[in-house]
Amino acid sequence: MNEGSHPSSGVTVDQINAFLKEVFTDDASTCEEVGDRWAIARFTPSESSLRPGGIISGQNVFGVCDRALYYACFTVIGIEPMVLTSELSIRFMRPARGETVRARAVLNHAGRRSLVGTITAWTDDPERPVAVAQGTYVTPQR
Amino acid sequence: MNEGSHPSSGVTVDQINAFLKEVFTDDASTCEEVGDRWAIARFTPSESSLRPGGIISGQNVFGVCDRALYYACFTVIGIEPMVLTSELSIRFMRPARGETVRARAVLNHAGRRSLVGTITAWTDDPERPVAVAQGTYVTPQR
Amino acid sequence: MNEGSHPSSGVTVDQINAFLKEVFTDDASTCEEVGDRWAIARFTPSESSLRPGGIISGQNVFGVCDRALYYACFTVIGIEPMVLTSELSIRFMRPARGETVRARAVLNHAGRRSLVGTITAWTDDPERPVAVAQGTYVTPQR
Amino acid sequence: MNEGSHPSSGVTVDQINAFLKEVFTDDASTCEEVGDRWAIARFTPSESSLRPGGIISGQNVFGVCDRALYYACFTVIGIEPMVLTSELSIRFMRPARGETVRARAVLNHAGRRSLVGTITAWTDDPERPVAVAQGTYVTPQR
Repeated sequence: MNEGSHPSSGVTVDQINAFLKEVFTDDASTCEEVGDRWAIARFTPSESSLRPGGIISGQNVFGVCDRALYYACFTVIGIEPMVLTSELSIRFMRPARGETVRARAVLNHAGRRSLVGTITAWTDDPERPVAVAQGTYVTPQR
Repeated sequence: MNEGSHPSSGVTVDQINAFLKEVFTDDASTCEEVGDRWAIARFTPSESSLRPGGIISGQNVFGVCDRALYYACFTVIGIEPMVLTSELSIRFMRPARGETVRARAVLNHAGRRSLVGTITAWTDDPERPVAVAQGTYVTPQR
Repeated sequence: MNEGSHPSSGVTVDQINAFLKEVFTDDASTCEEVGDRWAIARFTPSESSLRPGGIISGQNVFGVCDRALYYACFTVIGIEPMVLTSELSIRFMRPARGETVRARAVLNHAGRRSLVGTITAWTDDPERPVAVAQGTYVTPQR
Repeated sequence: MNEGSHPSSGVTVDQINAFLKEVFTDDASTCEEVGDRWAIARFTPSESSLRPGGIISGQNVFGVCDRALYYACFTVIGIEPMVLTSELSIRFMRPARGETVRARAVLNHAGRRSLVGTITAWTDDPERPVAVAQGTYVTPQR
């Protein structure tokens, strides 16, 4: 999707993943794709953290949505560790059955002080999202 | 946009506006467009209700977002007055300068008990939204 | 409630209402009470704007919640017209039947850049709220 | 707080923790206190999951808020594994520095189909919350 669109910051998937590896030592969440004002995050939880019935927990779905928006911010402002989640609201629509959960965040607004985005999360079928979310990141105070 | 897509309920813009006229007697919010799981609402506030500087109030922007989602629900379940807003979260991104505010709601999920959608609101330029929102409507209890 | 607590900004109900009268010319929403980091807003809609069955609209309930949080900000930072709603999420719990809707906002956080608060709205019975909300105001950019 | 108030469902902290141990096998989140329509959840993350600077991650703060609301639901409807998070919105107010994060959820509404609550999370000092949240749980479909 969005073939040929590129992050205006020039950031690449590899740069983001290298940054994550360095900073979040135990982290299994990675960046899978980036484009102009959007990014996809991917998370495969350990089997022991799954809920009964093989369901990925709501907390992990929230986490991957939050990360997708973090990476989407990087597509505009570059890798800026101190851009922080100000608020995020999430709606859970069906159980997150599957091994891997992905989330795609699209920025709706990138201002000087804050960035706003909308996120969709899915497991096996992107057409049947498990959750949608919307939230705000704030840039570091100067 | 979405040329050729049609509401699965078969509802039309005219049917929605006729319903609104009958039920919400003093209402200036109308339906402008509908498609398959999406709708556009439009609202032109009276001059006296504008904020200083000719800004449409946050409450009115919220109202048109809420309405767009209401109409989007109709595209799936037909005109159902008793589908009710359960929750809505909104982010205001810039002042709503302009005479008319429009909102486009897209359904992310249409379940038996609830419908979830994402909304974008704008005044003059759809590419510069004044707000985004996300929310849930619930169907009547049986 | 909170007898004897006073706004740290020293702002009074009369000062807030005088400000509202001057700035929001057609506004029926007023400030009813203030204390240390909290405020109560009150709104009596015109009969013609009521929904069928004498219900106050969701948009008006949202509006009074938003205002209560605005006034609560004033209790900390003084009357600052340009403190703006960044985001607000609301849950509607029962129809807002009644002539007047009130909302009480309590600040959870008052930072340099943003203020966060939680709001409860009711009509006849404060023990049976019609909605709860939570949101963020941002201070003017310097 | 709320000394002498008891869950109307009669559920106890021990019953909730026994249920958690059985169902969520790897779970470190426990119930610390319950009362009439409120509950406190507690979570101590492993050191390896902390963020740089010893910060508890936003995802873990979300998780403990979500859990507090789950336990608060139990105080009204009893232990009902299939009451599910429909939506939750969270505001992060300061870094969650500390070893343990706690969240207190209070129910604002307990209806037949849904329960709504407001949550405060803190680490060392309850008077300086790290986050506030608000959300909705839905009861199982019959």
